[in-house]
Amino acid sequence: MAGWNELLDQLHELADLGAATAILDWDQQTKMPPKGAEARAHQLATLQGIHHERLTSAALRDALEGAETAGDGPAPFRGEAGQALLRETRRIVERGSKLPVPFVKELASASSRAFERWQRARAESRFIIFRDDLARLVDLKRREARYVGYREHPYDALLDEFEPGQTATATAAVFQEIRGPIVALLRAIQASPRQPRREILTQHFPSDNQWAFGLEVLSTMGFDFEAGRQDTSAHPFTTGFSPGDVRVTTRVYENELPVALFGTIHEGGHALYEQGFAPELMRTPLANSPSLGMHESQSRLWENVIGRSSAFWRYWYPRLSARFPEQLSRIPEEDFVLAINHVRPSFIRVEADEVTYNLHIILRFELEVALLEGSLEVDALPEVWNAKMDELFGIVPERDADGVLQDVHWSYGSFGYFPTYTLGTLYSTQLWMALKRVFPDFEDRIARGDVLFIREWLRENIHRHGSTFVAQELLQRVTGEGLNPTHFLGYLRQKFSALYQLVW
Amino acid sequence: MAGWNELLDQLHELADLGAATAILDWDQQTKMPPKGAEARAHQLATLQGIHHERLTSAALRDALEGAETAGDGPAPFRGEAGQALLRETRRIVERGSKLPVPFVKELASASSRAFERWQRARAESRFIIFRDDLARLVDLKRREARYVGYREHPYDALLDEFEPGQTATATAAVFQEIRGPIVALLRAIQASPRQPRREILTQHFPSDNQWAFGLEVLSTMGFDFEAGRQDTSAHPFTTGFSPGDVRVTTRVYENELPVALFGTIHEGGHALYEQGFAPELMRTPLANSPSLGMHESQSRLWENVIGRSSAFWRYWYPRLSARFPEQLSRIPEEDFVLAINHVRPSFIRVEADEVTYNLHIILRFELEVALLEGSLEVDALPEVWNAKMDELFGIVPERDADGVLQDVHWSYGSFGYFPTYTLGTLYSTQLWMALKRVFPDFEDRIARGDVLFIREWLRENIHRHGSTFVAQELLQRVTGEGLNPTHFLGYLRQKFSALYQLVW
Repeated sequence: MAGWNELLDQLHELADLGAATAILDWDQQTKMPPKGAEARAHQLATLQGIHHERLTSAALRDALEGAETAGDGPAPFRGEAGQALLRETRRIVERGSKLPVPFVKELASASSRAFERWQRARAESRFIIFRDDLARLVDLKRREARYVGYREHPYDALLDEFEPGQTATATAAVFQEIRGPIVALLRAIQASPRQPRREILTQHFPSDNQWAFGLEVLSTMGFDFEAGRQDTSAHPFTTGFSPGDVRVTTRVYENELPVALFGTIHEGGHALYEQGFAPELMRTPLANSPSLGMHESQSRLWENVIGRSSAFWRYWYPRLSARFPEQLSRIPEEDFVLAINHVRPSFIRVEADEVTYNLHIILRFELEVALLEGSLEVDALPEVWNAKMDELFGIVPERDADGVLQDVHWSYGSFGYFPTYTLGTLYSTQLWMALKRVFPDFEDRIARGDVLFIREWLRENIHRHGSTFVAQELLQRVTGEGLNPTHFLGYLRQKFSALYQLVW
Repeated sequence: MAGWNELLDQLHELADLGAATAILDWDQQTKMPPKGAEARAHQLATLQGIHHERLTSAALRDALEGAETAGDGPAPFRGEAGQALLRETRRIVERGSKLPVPFVKELASASSRAFERWQRARAESRFIIFRDDLARLVDLKRREARYVGYREHPYDALLDEFEPGQTATATAAVFQEIRGPIVALLRAIQASPRQPRREILTQHFPSDNQWAFGLEVLSTMGFDFEAGRQDTSAHPFTTGFSPGDVRVTTRVYENELPVALFGTIHEGGHALYEQGFAPELMRTPLANSPSLGMHESQSRLWENVIGRSSAFWRYWYPRLSARFPEQLSRIPEEDFVLAINHVRPSFIRVEADEVTYNLHIILRFELEVALLEGSLEVDALPEVWNAKMDELFGIVPERDADGVLQDVHWSYGSFGYFPTYTLGTLYSTQLWMALKRVFPDFEDRIARGDVLFIREWLRENIHRHGSTFVAQELLQRVTGEGLNPTHFLGYLRQKFSALYQLVW
């Protein structure tokens, strides 16, 4: 047991350091005055440096080995949970230890420079400004993959950071399975005579009322405001410092109703996950989701499967209209529901609808894999991007800013991150199937404004476990099967055939 | 130079850790949801533990000795500034190293318990609830004094933490000098037929407008909102994470105008100090005031000497009336100025006026010294408190909550802290004298709404130096003399004789 106590002490301190970093980051994005940025960069670097130092220390390794030798841990870390804690600790310790410190510093400095260059490149819509930095980052990420190690493909080493256990080959197979059907569905929707009146959503919606409506929805979802808060930031995000302190952010556009509304529901889904970790996992690596995909499954389930459903708006549309009578009282509910489900090819991923969103991800995944394995040169990237846009969407951006330069991720060196968005989407519809099995009156309850039972079920089956189970195992336990994209395809066909009155 | 670089690296990380702690503390007091408290206590303890570990490490000691041996540091730490950095570093390293870790933990746990008990004791107004914990803290502080060491009096060891170099004997002498004259002035004011209409200030003043007026004053004082912000909190405070990020808080009472107004000006004075540290001192122990008294001199100068002067309101009263026409348009300026300078004996220190405030401090100082040297038993404290109230103010509280239980400080184990409030007040009037010598049109400029020249002079002469000079040396440089309470007495007599039309 001595080994275990030592291990837990060290893990607690690591978790505290991680939380402190997250608090500084939240503050930077929501409250910090502009001239605080220089010192904040130092403060974050110091905390991260100490975290890395301790994560890769001989002391932690010794404590981990001590606990492994001792076997069962103290409550609540007996049996399964204890083994899970050792597994997760070993995973993060080993991943952290494989990267030499000079390499980590080189990568941090290259990303920082690349981010500056990317901002300029996007503002001027000139890929050439970003080209050298991107090439350098690709090279560094290939080196990172070699340090980390992989069996099949260098991409596996990167993907594994965000979606442990997932591989490029498995991802490619799943994406291949959904690619064709999504394109076919998109073409069918485009051909439908029934099309939304999107101008419903671009009227003037005063921000105070948007904010108040968002809080009402968050509350009804079961977000605990005694254990969290919402603020505004340039880019919406969720961050948790403990299950008792989970913060979401959103942004409000007065002429674009869906931005704040669905942003809030999306982040709310992430936040319920973070508020739902079992308290006894606090300050350990198990107070975390097992993968980014699993985290995203929660936000997508709430935002899209629930939040963009007809049933949801049966209850909520009268309430929204009451807040915005001038804008909405003469708009029928079904027109509103169709408008928030407007499907069309578009250039910008973050503005994409449920059908085309995953095509944006597939495009990025294919390019990332090719860059990493060296079958695609950075110089050819804009051209190949545009060719793939044409192939998948039937449209080609006129400016690199609307194409290859649109996402910030690569400038951070985040390769292997994008697929988790689609994996999360696939998980979300598998959870939806499970929910409908357990609650045959699933839609009726939502239509009556009752969604709390969903949070309860998710909390019991997913949230409270943290990362006690790896993503695939958790999915298997909860849904009775592994990753299976047919449910997503079934969901899309059913939902959009009804909305667009498609005949198959 | 190698020694210097190593020392600076370590000092930078220590400063970053200190700033991170301050950010978590700010967040806790302004934004954190209630259920975040448990995890936040852990996060703060971990950061403070790492800070203490590094502050007292052999590595820092070695680096310090290396730099001391090397002599001159790299720019800007050549000559005077370099010697100051070595001096300040040695001071905090030695103070930190003298307290054994088990003692620090015992003190932390005793304070934490005492704080809980004090809250209950004050709520129920029963000293007996707090008695044992207070006795334990007094005992711990006596042990602390022995660990730290002192020449004359155990109190010196505690006072030195907040006001380096200051002693109990010197403080007692100064307090003795002002005690009688303040009491005499108080009696004269009480006897004056001219008395303020305090009900002017307890009308209903909507908080939005109070907030906006406070921001306008802060801005005019030269507070840089690109390098700071104001929020609300239960207890007003100022905290700086770098000169580029300094945050003040205030609280707004709609039926008590002075609370937010003078709270904002007071914290604004502290904040200008923090925004004014020379950028090249950033992330070192020199980016700090040399003492709490010197810090307080800034807040008191702005709040009282400037902010409660007739000249200040010549410019600002028409602006305040314009914001609150219903409440103030029929109230003459001089009635308002008299009301904000209402002098009367009162029980509660934080609500006291400029004249009686220091009597509250003298009372606490005398009791603290007696407790520490053992000439006063904790059991006798309420009785002695009340006797001193009678002696100094001519009034006796009916409840311990209005007497010995009113302040939070002792429950934190903060003995030796109170005198810095009065020392700061004394410094502030010495600075006022210096300002009037340099700017013969001092009052006229203030009356025209120009106060920025004061910030500039303070920045040049005080702020930018940080703790390059110890407090007494800085005072000597700026005012041409050491601590001299006659200026404070002269200031009080002049100001209040005019306001209350006293004849001496």
